[in-house]
Amino acid sequence: MRTVNGWAAHAPGEALRPWRFERRDLRPTDVALRVTHAGVCFTDLDHVRPEPGQERPEIFPLVPGHEIVGEVTAVGAAVTGFRAGDPVCVGNIVDSCGVCEACRGGDQEFCEQFPTLTYAGRDRVDGSLTQGGFSDEYVADQAFVHRRPEGLDPAGTAPLMCAGITTWVPLRQWEAGPGRTVGIIGLGGLGHVAVKLAKALGAEVVGFTTSPGKAADMRALGADDVVLSTDAEAMAEQRGRFDFILDTVPRAHDLTPYLHALRFDRTLCSLGMVQDMPFDPMALVFGRKRLAGAGSGGIAATREMLDFCGAHGVTATVEVLPATEVNTALDRLAANDVKYRFVLDMAR
Amino acid sequence: MRTVNGWAAHAPGEALRPWRFERRDLRPTDVALRVTHAGVCFTDLDHVRPEPGQERPEIFPLVPGHEIVGEVTAVGAAVTGFRAGDPVCVGNIVDSCGVCEACRGGDQEFCEQFPTLTYAGRDRVDGSLTQGGFSDEYVADQAFVHRRPEGLDPAGTAPLMCAGITTWVPLRQWEAGPGRTVGIIGLGGLGHVAVKLAKALGAEVVGFTTSPGKAADMRALGADDVVLSTDAEAMAEQRGRFDFILDTVPRAHDLTPYLHALRFDRTLCSLGMVQDMPFDPMALVFGRKRLAGAGSGGIAATREMLDFCGAHGVTATVEVLPATEVNTALDRLAANDVKYRFVLDMAR
Repeated sequence: MRTVNGWAAHAPGEALRPWRFERRDLRPTDVALRVTHAGVCFTDLDHVRPEPGQERPEIFPLVPGHEIVGEVTAVGAAVTGFRAGDPVCVGNIVDSCGVCEACRGGDQEFCEQFPTLTYAGRDRVDGSLTQGGFSDEYVADQAFVHRRPEGLDPAGTAPLMCAGITTWVPLRQWEAGPGRTVGIIGLGGLGHVAVKLAKALGAEVVGFTTSPGKAADMRALGADDVVLSTDAEAMAEQRGRFDFILDTVPRAHDLTPYLHALRFDRTLCSLGMVQDMPFDPMALVFGRKRLAGAGSGGIAATREMLDFCGAHGVTATVEVLPATEVNTALDRLAANDVKYRFVLDMAR
Repeated sequence: MRTVNGWAAHAPGEALRPWRFERRDLRPTDVALRVTHAGVCFTDLDHVRPEPGQERPEIFPLVPGHEIVGEVTAVGAAVTGFRAGDPVCVGNIVDSCGVCEACRGGDQEFCEQFPTLTYAGRDRVDGSLTQGGFSDEYVADQAFVHRRPEGLDPAGTAPLMCAGITTWVPLRQWEAGPGRTVGIIGLGGLGHVAVKLAKALGAEVVGFTTSPGKAADMRALGADDVVLSTDAEAMAEQRGRFDFILDTVPRAHDLTPYLHALRFDRTLCSLGMVQDMPFDPMALVFGRKRLAGAGSGGIAATREMLDFCGAHGVTATVEVLPATEVNTALDRLAANDVKYRFVLDMAR
C-alpha cells in the first residue's frame, strides 16, 4: 500500500485536519499522481458539513477534493499512455460500469450502475472507500486520468475538472457558438467559467445577475452584455432574445422570465435544479421550449473540454490558498466570500 | 356579407342554440367551405362553459369549433390552389403575422404577434371576432385551408386538425419512428390519436393509463404494450425504457416515474402542462433529461400530418352526433363520457 498525507474530516461537521492514510498499490492500469493543486467545490462543503439530517457517518474519515491537478509519479505495468512527469488532472468520477448505454456512449457520469466518485465512493474492485484530492497523492485508473494542457496555469485548471466540465457539456449540447446568443445565470464558480467558455466558443454572451456590483466583473470575464435580473423591466426586454440559457444558480428562483427570454423552440438548462423550482408551464408550452437537466461529463467530453481550454487559454479565476488553510477556504466558501473558486496549493 | 347558420352560446355558461350571423365577403385569397363535420374539443367546452373567474363576455355570441372538415364552395379572385368541390379542412388557427421567426419557420401557431384563432379571435384585417366551425360555412385565407386526403373518413379526419396536429408535432420533433420506444400517457382525444400516429410512424408504442379497463382499448388502437401507471412496481420496471414519452393528460400528476422511465438524454413532452406539475428535479438532472412543451402546429406540419394520415389510413376514433345534439356532446364531454372524440354532422 502507498502511504499518503491528506486533510480529512473525521466526522460530519468537524474541521479538516492532517491525516495519514493508505492508497492501493498500483493495479496494471493505474496511474499515481502527485497532487499539486485541488479546487474547493460546494460539493466538498456539502460532504464535510452536511445539512442536519443529511449526515452520512459511514463515509468518514473523509478526504474531499475532486478538482485535482498534478503530475504523474508512477504507472501500472499495462499503462502506456502516461509516464512519470506528465501533467495530468482528475475530476469527480474515477470509474464506471463501462457497459451500460451511458458508459458506451462516453457519458460515464450517468453510468446506470452509478459511477465511482472520486471521494466518498466505493472502489469497484476492492469495495474500499475512495478518498479525494486534498492529499499529496491520488491513484486512479488511466481511463479517468486526463492529460493536462501544459500552457495553462495549474491552479486555474483545477476547477475545470468540475465547474468547467459541468458547464461545458450543456454549452456544447445546446450548441453555444458563433451566431448564438447565450445567457448565463449567476456568477459563481460555475457561472464565471460558463461565461468564459461560452465566449471562447464564439457565442454572444449575456450574464444575468442579481447584483449590480457584479456587472463589471461579468464584462471583464467576457460577457458582451449584463442584465440585472431583479429589474423586471430589463427582464421583459429580453423576451425572445436567447438561443440558450444556462442557469448556474443552486437555489429555487422563478424560471419564468428566463423561459420568456428564450427564442422559439429553444432550451433552458438548469444546473442547480432544485425541488419546487417555480415556473409558469405556459412559458414552456407557448414557444415550444424545453427545460433540460445536466450534470458533469464523461471521459470524452472532459478531454474535449481540456483540449479546448488549452487551445483558447481558458482557466478558472481562482484564489490560491495553502493547503494548511483548507478550513479557512471552507469557511469563506460557506459565506460565499470567493472570487470565484478556491484552489489549495498542496505543496504549502 | 355571407349569411351563415351556426350554433352559438350567447353568454358564458349558456347552452348553444341556432344563430344566424354573417361572414365576410371573400377577399382575393379567401376560400369558402361548406362545413360537413366539426370535432368537439375540450377547448370548445372551456370557451362556452368557462371556470368561475375565467369568463370573457366580450367573445359572445360565440360559435365554437376548430376541427373543421368540409368542401370548397367558392374561392376568391386570386385563389388558384382550390376550386369548388375540393375536400378541405381547417384547424385552430386561420391567420398569423407572417413575418416573425416562428411564422417564417412555418410554425404559425407560435406567431410572436399571436395567431388568429379560428373562433374567439380577432380578424387581422377588419378586427371582427372570428366565429368557429359549428356552422354551415367557414371562410378563411387559403394559406390556412388544408387539402383533405380523399380516402379518409371525413368525420374521423376532423379531430386530426387539433388532436392530430398537437400530438404529431412532438412525435416528429422527438423522432418517434422505427427502433424507438415511445410512451403515450392518457387515452383521451389526444392520447388515442397519439397511439395511432406513433404506431403508424413505426415506433414501439407503450400506453400508460390509470384505468385497467383501458388496456384492451389501447392495444386495439395499436399499442404494443400497456402499463398501469397506478402500479408502482410496474412503473419501476419501466426505468430507462423509453426514447420519448408524450403526456396527454391535462391535469397535475407526478412526472417523476415517467422521467425515470426515459433512457439517458431523452425527452418527456407534456401537452397538458399545468401549474405545479410535480416532478423530482434530480430525475431531470441524473440522466440529462428534458421536459418539453408543445402546442399545435403550423401550416407545413399540418399538411405533412394530413398527407401522412392519408397514406397510412389514420383517423381519429369518433362518435358522430347530429349538430342538433351539440349540447349533449358538450355535456358528455364534460363528464368524460366519450370514445374518443365527438364529431358533429353539420348536415343533420
